[in-house]
Amino acid sequence: ARSINLAVIPGDGIGREVVAQGLKVLSAVLPQDVKLETKEYDLGARRWHATGETLPDAELEALRSHDAILLGAIGDPSVPSGVLERGLLLKLRFAFDHYVNLRPSKLFPNTASPLAGDPEIDFVVVREGTEGPYVGNGGSLRTGTPAEVATEVSLNTAHGVERVVRDAYERAAARPRKKLTLVHKNNVLVYAGHLWKNIFDRVGEEYPQVTTDYLHVDAATIFLVNDPARFDVIVTDNLFGDILTDLAAAITGGIGLAASGNINPSGAFPSMFEPVHGSAPDIAGTGKADPTATILSVALLLDHLGHRAEAARIEEAVTADLAERAGAPARTTDEIGDALAVRVAN
Amino acid sequence: ARSINLAVIPGDGIGREVVAQGLKVLSAVLPQDVKLETKEYDLGARRWHATGETLPDAELEALRSHDAILLGAIGDPSVPSGVLERGLLLKLRFAFDHYVNLRPSKLFPNTASPLAGDPEIDFVVVREGTEGPYVGNGGSLRTGTPAEVATEVSLNTAHGVERVVRDAYERAAARPRKKLTLVHKNNVLVYAGHLWKNIFDRVGEEYPQVTTDYLHVDAATIFLVNDPARFDVIVTDNLFGDILTDLAAAITGGIGLAASGNINPSGAFPSMFEPVHGSAPDIAGTGKADPTATILSVALLLDHLGHRAEAARIEEAVTADLAERAGAPARTTDEIGDALAVRVAN
Ligand SMILES: CC(C)[C@H](C(=O)O)[C@@H](O)C(=O)O
Ligand SMILES: CC(C)[C@H](C(=O)O)[C@@H](O)C(=O)O
Repeated sequence: ARSINLAVIPGDGIGREVVAQGLKVLSAVLPQDVKLETKEYDLGARRWHATGETLPDAELEALRSHDAILLGAIGDPSVPSGVLERGLLLKLRFAFDHYVNLRPSKLFPNTASPLAGDPEIDFVVVREGTEGPYVGNGGSLRTGTPAEVATEVSLNTAHGVERVVRDAYERAAARPRKKLTLVHKNNVLVYAGHLWKNIFDRVGEEYPQVTTDYLHVDAATIFLVNDPARFDVIVTDNLFGDILTDLAAAITGGIGLAASGNINPSGAFPSMFEPVHGSAPDIAGTGKADPTATILSVALLLDHLGHRAEAARIEEAVTADLAERAGAPARTTDEIGDALAVRVAN
Repeated sequence: ARSINLAVIPGDGIGREVVAQGLKVLSAVLPQDVKLETKEYDLGARRWHATGETLPDAELEALRSHDAILLGAIGDPSVPSGVLERGLLLKLRFAFDHYVNLRPSKLFPNTASPLAGDPEIDFVVVREGTEGPYVGNGGSLRTGTPAEVATEVSLNTAHGVERVVRDAYERAAARPRKKLTLVHKNNVLVYAGHLWKNIFDRVGEEYPQVTTDYLHVDAATIFLVNDPARFDVIVTDNLFGDILTDLAAAITGGIGLAASGNINPSGAFPSMFEPVHGSAPDIAGTGKADPTATILSVALLLDHLGHRAEAARIEEAVTADLAERAGAPARTTDEIGDALAVRVAN
């Protein structure tokens, strides 16, 4: 596309700081003739405190008209747990049918992993984004009494599972190693688990070139620590994907580098790109936040919009920058953004 | 107790091999005047193939009369996923109301962790064992068609949460660091999460000496890798506990050392002790299985039955044995059992 009409939700805490760097790098990397328009949306803790609103319908509607959304981070300890997550972040993922929650994990050269040895880590998690235990289908009875019962229902549909599994096969088929691992817990969660496994096996028949594998989620955490090189593409449910991708971020040098895309592959709705990390109010305003995860999320955004060369340039810039970070004095959020903007511009 | 009437379920794969070593060490450590009676129950894959039975009522009733149960491992690839897990292992945990699933994690001296540096790891996970997503309350509609819907319901009760949270506070209060961390995902699973958090906070008022902390499950996996020393006692739901304890086993040198107890603290039902690892059919019969996790589970069993000194002797023997393992040629399952039996007898 020769123009990008981007919605920006800086959000809370370090969200604004890292988003500023993401936009800086985005402007620097885009060819002159691609027109970038951005519109900021004031959503998050501040807004909720001021007006009680999380995501009014009018704003949801306005967001819908954009080509994509860049989000910083949402959440603050002053807001009751769940209010912004359910009312804003998950509402966006569900309303815009972001069924592919894409989370690449790569140990960049020269980046310290907490794992001993120098494991090779380069895999992608395709996390389902619109079903499972995240649907918000729960309740509580006799709340606050000794007789309270609380439920959470995980909803899984053939429709929802098949489309994300298919997306994962496509991604696996396009990678050199062509390997896809399904992660679930089908020996305990037998109904949801069998739905996933059956669809995984059936769709797999259409991709004979892709090697497949199944792991229970508990075993998958062991392999992520002991043998992360075994993974190429992982497809998994919303909750397992949440857990595995934080662990994946940890083993690849931390949450400061983990990017994600909430993607609606059909294009019917704008996709949304955000770092995996949270709003980190403890370091907000100190210049300590690493904007790299946001900048890598901008690369995912560009890739999604068809600007493949620009996406690759950002990845290369980050790789080169990280190689020089080892041992060097710590830089501020702004300095890292500047350095990457310079690199991608060249 | 001056006698122990033990039920033994060797189970499948390496189960029989490791249980034999557990019993060897148990016999060696017990004082002469404690009478040990064991009765073996033939349950698992072989039995299911032969008779179609997983756990007949008569055997459940018979198991009930024992002081405790020692279980090896259940499961074989030849049995459809879920049949033995739901029909035998989880059936036992639920029928005997094993609401405290106790899983200590300790990095023994001289044991290699996959984590770089030499982190200090010594914590206990108190995993809820009778509720949550494990209740088996799910179903599927239009199974096998493109219109399939599958559900899994997580059931959580104040009754079930309070008793396990209280048990965890007691354990934390009895440890030097007196720190208890609740792990859940209360920003997404708001109904179950708030039930857990409210009870955790309320019961905490009775334990002012215990420092408390809350982590989302995704963040907890990061800390387990980056800062495992921060954990002392963790209390969490059935599914999160399953995931975290496999990860905990991985960072403490592997599943070959991870012990567990499925405990009914009231004593109304026999408690059951088992290694965290599975039946590992790939190495069954090769003598490669490490029986240490089972032997440490025997220590938990002894502790539960009030034989504290004997439990401690096993732990010390394992510590000493592991210190000598580093660099030494690999020993067989039997040799490790013999070595530990000799050590505890002294
Ligand atoms: C903030 C929270 C709702 C979110 C999630 O659980 O998906 C976050 O952990 C993530 O992984 O993006
Ligand atoms: C075999 C399986 C049912 C079991 C569980 O999920 O609890 C196992 O993983 C465990 O941790 O003991």
